[in-house]
Amino acid sequence: MNKVILLNKRPEGKPTLEDFKFVEEETPVVSEGQVLLKTRYVSVDPYLRGRMTDAKSYVPPFELNKPVQSAVVAEVLDSGNSSFNKGDFVTGLLDWKEYQLSDGRGLNRVDAEAADLSAYLGILGMTGLTAYFGLTEIGRPKEGETLVVSGAAGAVGSVVGQIGKIMGCKVIGIAGSDEKIEQLKSKFGFDAGINYKTTQDMTKAIADAAPDGVDVYFDNVGGEVSDGVLANINNFGRVPVCGAISTYNDTVVSQGPRLQPILVKNSVLMQGFIVSNYGAKFPEGIKQLTQWLQEGKLTYTETIVNGFDQIPQAFIGLFDGKNNGKMVVKI
Amino acid sequence: MNKVILLNKRPEGKPTLEDFKFVEEETPVVSEGQVLLKTRYVSVDPYLRGRMTDAKSYVPPFELNKPVQSAVVAEVLDSGNSSFNKGDFVTGLLDWKEYQLSDGRGLNRVDAEAADLSAYLGILGMTGLTAYFGLTEIGRPKEGETLVVSGAAGAVGSVVGQIGKIMGCKVIGIAGSDEKIEQLKSKFGFDAGINYKTTQDMTKAIADAAPDGVDVYFDNVGGEVSDGVLANINNFGRVPVCGAISTYNDTVVSQGPRLQPILVKNSVLMQGFIVSNYGAKFPEGIKQLTQWLQEGKLTYTETIVNGFDQIPQAFIGLFDGKNNGKMVVKI
Repeated sequence: MNKVILLNKRPEGKPTLEDFKFVEEETPVVSEGQVLLKTRYVSVDPYLRGRMTDAKSYVPPFELNKPVQSAVVAEVLDSGNSSFNKGDFVTGLLDWKEYQLSDGRGLNRVDAEAADLSAYLGILGMTGLTAYFGLTEIGRPKEGETLVVSGAAGAVGSVVGQIGKIMGCKVIGIAGSDEKIEQLKSKFGFDAGINYKTTQDMTKAIADAAPDGVDVYFDNVGGEVSDGVLANINNFGRVPVCGAISTYNDTVVSQGPRLQPILVKNSVLMQGFIVSNYGAKFPEGIKQLTQWLQEGKLTYTETIVNGFDQIPQAFIGLFDGKNNGKMVVKI
Repeated sequence: MNKVILLNKRPEGKPTLEDFKFVEEETPVVSEGQVLLKTRYVSVDPYLRGRMTDAKSYVPPFELNKPVQSAVVAEVLDSGNSSFNKGDFVTGLLDWKEYQLSDGRGLNRVDAEAADLSAYLGILGMTGLTAYFGLTEIGRPKEGETLVVSGAAGAVGSVVGQIGKIMGCKVIGIAGSDEKIEQLKSKFGFDAGINYKTTQDMTKAIADAAPDGVDVYFDNVGGEVSDGVLANINNFGRVPVCGAISTYNDTVVSQGPRLQPILVKNSVLMQGFIVSNYGAKFPEGIKQLTQWLQEGKLTYTETIVNGFDQIPQAFIGLFDGKNNGKMVVKI
């Protein structure tokens, strides 16, 4: 039998285990043109929370009592499709199922020799590309500038900071524990780190860490952390807005200081984005990231949780900061 | 004797007459290299409020007990500078004085035959250029898109809407009286208007007026009006942030719904700007605006207040919406 995870109800506030339901179904059999996939690694990502809500967004919401989907690395167990062979590894947006069929559309073969399979859900996947395009296309950091990254210990944030260093910036990371801050500096080469949980006055902490002001703020979190950074933004500052995890579980609309006066005063650009906006340039991004990885200029951290049954809990853990780098579930 | 208006104290909240002081000084006499200017028209602008506060901004604050400055059209009464002749008309950032000397730097000669002198403070001056560059460089409207303009009856807003129509957009203006709304439609060719003072639910009013959503929002006001527009912003929407007049008199930081979730959800760009960012392109902008004006595609409204003594009151009146289009003081 084949285990499947359905969206049981739409979360209110922080997701809970009750929002998900495990069911079993017959393991499917390949027909002409199809491949049978065995799930090997499942990506859990904050953006999935948005798809669990029934609201207008860039992707349609998940349907109730249908499987949740996310990025997955799978192995081809059986193929009736000439583009894929048994033993191939592929990535794609797939259901939370142990086994599933695909007609091959949207699947990309990955090289299991070139990197660990899980890297294709992280630094060589959507998270790496999100960091790369958000920073280079919107943030456009110049040598000698100051880059601040929130959610810096997260999957995207840790890559953003490293690319910032490659591009010659002073890089300051904001994260939620002293352990994470230490890792930002020792492992990822950040120049400084701020633990937002123990910082009373974020505006002052940023001012102290960035005495020349902030040129680029890569915003993963929104909320009060971002208020503090934006109070220190320089003239012509650029703010790629990648996520707002601090607000995703709000049941009422989160309030904060209005941004328009800051934007006008300093000619600041804020640009929300999703990685698929840059889909046409993915090959360029993957090539550059792979090169940096092979040159040893990029490194990454994963939190690997074991077991199909643990997928919902791993996802929920994202909102408690349980992950250190990219969170993936190994099946 | 020569009348001069000084900044007497820094306004708290809305400016009052007590924030200004009239003094008299000797009318100056030209030395080698100088011109003697007689002030003919004085521009009063919301952004001056920012310079009256002692805060970091894109231009240094006015000094206490020094003359206030703004854009002025002046006549050359006497010249010791070979670049200017007696009888020339010039524009420049000049003191609030009846007469003053200049070394000629920052002065631009204007053609008194091509347009009314006051137009050089408005549609052919900073306000016209602000509308032109904010809309074309940041808003980048495409034919068939929906453009919303707040502060639409203001000097910048009315030009933004007209350029939007020239570029083939559906244009919706937001202003503060039914009379202004009527004028937006009858005089400036807007497709629809919303009176924010009599509208209970701005989000719904925008949704009704813009059933296809908002592609470009030219934001002059910030605050709750903007919250309502941004709730209707389309995917890949663009928001030139030109001003935030609703917040300029706040004595505590104005709070509102956080914008990051909207920006991310819809890949929205917000860009604050000041017109001088586009200084290198001013000749192009003036040429285009003059052509449209001569072709009858652009029109403008001025509120002309008479008398040097009325400058402070005219400025204060901006914050009560006393102006209809560009507010200038004729001396």
